[in-house]
Amino acid sequence: MVGIIRELTFATRENMDFLEITHALQEDLSKTGMKDGEGIFFIPHTTAGLTINENADPDVIHDLKLALKRIAPDLPGYRHLEGNSSAHLLASLMGFSLTVPVREGRLALGTWQGIYLCEFDGPRRRKLLVRWRAS
Amino acid sequence: MVGIIRELTFATRENMDFLEITHALQEDLSKTGMKDGEGIFFIPHTTAGLTINENADPDVIHDLKLALKRIAPDLPGYRHLEGNSSAHLLASLMGFSLTVPVREGRLALGTWQGIYLCEFDGPRRRKLLVRWRAS
Amino acid sequence: MVGIIRELTFATRENMDFLEITHALQEDLSKTGMKDGEGIFFIPHTTAGLTINENADPDVIHDLKLALKRIAPDLPGYRHLEGNSSAHLLASLMGFSLTVPVREGRLALGTWQGIYLCEFDGPRRRKLLVRWRAS
Repeated sequence: MVGIIRELTFATRENMDFLEITHALQEDLSKTGMKDGEGIFFIPHTTAGLTINENADPDVIHDLKLALKRIAPDLPGYRHLEGNSSAHLLASLMGFSLTVPVREGRLALGTWQGIYLCEFDGPRRRKLLVRWRAS
Repeated sequence: MVGIIRELTFATRENMDFLEITHALQEDLSKTGMKDGEGIFFIPHTTAGLTINENADPDVIHDLKLALKRIAPDLPGYRHLEGNSSAHLLASLMGFSLTVPVREGRLALGTWQGIYLCEFDGPRRRKLLVRWRAS
Repeated sequence: MVGIIRELTFATRENMDFLEITHALQEDLSKTGMKDGEGIFFIPHTTAGLTINENADPDVIHDLKLALKRIAPDLPGYRHLEGNSSAHLLASLMGFSLTVPVREGRLALGTWQGIYLCEFDGPRRRKLLVRWRAS
């Protein structure tokens, strides 16, 4: 199953939501039996992104969301009729692809790191494309 | 040709320009005949970046550019004599590398996704390094 | 040594520091003897990131730091008791992973590009995970 592209789906819970997907990704990795390589993660959406941040104190995610709202307010000059231009901006700021090393069958994340699917226009169902690439 | 690094060039049209390069990348992929793997895209510049966003309604790109100008105004404390510090900032915010899965000979993009070369100090000619990596 | 995950450590010098690591990475690449492929770089921290920017005029990094401080001030609504929420935000804005093509044994960087470890909560020791992947 290594090398095969895999599609996971996640249900986000709020309009702006940082959904931690570390466990789902680690579980998917474990199914492949891959020991060393990388995980390549890709969000096929335009108002959701991917990031990494602390998963110990939930206040970090609270503060991150607060700060992102301040960075991306609705602007009077916005033209896009769907009214979600800030969501498009935030997705580009967080990014759509992430490559994480795998070591001894585990995502080689730091002690405090979790991987987050960043929803900016939810709640809704989102896809994540995953490829595990053995070294 | 898979595995070989390829260099594409693009002419940007404005000082701040989001040039959609999806078709050029798909065409380059098709030439390789690669069916499954990833495309690794890299911008060897410091005032241009890469992002993904909606390519259906052009108002999304309009709004994205408006928001980025607001995030990165010229600051009185800037020292760089070329006067393009905001362009350097925006390039780092969008990012320089992007990894996109390939499935059945196609970039596995979402329905509304396009890949954009983000020009922040144009117009000028820009290079993009491309590697297609088979799985 | 190609394909093996490698761990480098760096000592940052200031609370907000852009430490150029291009030479250290090129030196590590040279040890592997790899000619063509990619370097995959990953920061296993939540208040440090990775970016690329100009390494010719140090004023560019000065201006980048000035602009990032403006984008991420301390906000009254922040709850995280460690008081470094802005550092978490800036790490997510810069990003945690970077993939750089390698060509003829060299990082295929642009003329003005340097790779920076972005410290937002230093000074301290930071790790960087590196994988060289031959094509």
